Amino acid sequence: MRSIARCLGLTSAAMGLTALTALAGSGAADAAPSGAETLYAPSALVLSVTDGADADNGTVLRAVTLICAPRPGGTHPSPAAACAELRANADQLDALAQPRSDAACTKEWRPVTVAAEGVWQGRRMSYTYTFANSCGLRNSTGTLFTI
Amino acid sequence: MRSIARCLGLTSAAMGLTALTALAGSGAADAAPSGAETLYAPSALVLSVTDGADADNGTVLRAVTLICAPRPGGTHPSPAAACAELRANADQLDALAQPRSDAACTKEWRPVTVAAEGVWQGRRMSYTYTFANSCGLRNSTGTLFTI
Repeated sequence: MRSIARCLGLTSAAMGLTALTALAGSGAADAAPSGAETLYAPSALVLSVTDGADADNGTVLRAVTLICAPRPGGTHPSPAAACAELRANADQLDALAQPRSDAACTKEWRPVTVAAEGVWQGRRMSYTYTFANSCGLRNSTGTLFTI
Repeated sequence: MRSIARCLGLTSAAMGLTALTALAGSGAADAAPSGAETLYAPSALVLSVTDGADADNGTVLRAVTLICAPRPGGTHPSPAAACAELRANADQLDALAQPRSDAACTKEWRPVTVAAEGVWQGRRMSYTYTFANSCGLRNSTGTLFTI
């Protein structure tokens, strides 16, 4: 199975609880706040499945949102499980793309690419993984991309 | 004001209604569906505000989700207005970052960077814009990044 994986900005993902106050008061004039500061590091992601191996230019077949703070939510079908997987594997999401032990897929090359992008614990995240075919996606170990 | 803008994969954003059936049946074994296909091009985004000019490595201060199909939703405070702005300006989001006519901000360089990433009408989107300071963000014309 050929695969393409890319991961950005996750080396310092384990930020933990963060007090975020940097924006208040800089600049001048019209001091209406643009939004409330949060007392936790934000986590908000889009999970998607793209037809083909080119995540940047291919047609996106499905896309859901996932938030993990202050509590799991979004349009992901299993947000609590997905957030737990992210907490356990955020620095190595390839672990979620491994085939289950009982999987039996052909090696046909009809690729689909999954992507996780947005923010994880206060850092930008951009991750993609290409499965040889959708059977590989359906039979992967994680539920994060089961959307 | 210095600014950095980056936009990816939006040249063919106007996909309109799309029937998406490509995944079904490829591969083999264990044919349980990984998710229902949608009858509209998916739109799901994460909007974020990062401290500093480096969106990839800076600390994310705030992040929200936004979905625009089949109807506006997510944790964005004004999803309907934000989706309308995206429909009108998706190929040129810089239009939403222009200063309002009544804005009066200093030129202090204490940058904040906004980002929109995820999926817009079935195509990946990755957009960033750096404001010289948070006053510029608070006084921009759009509500998309007012999070």
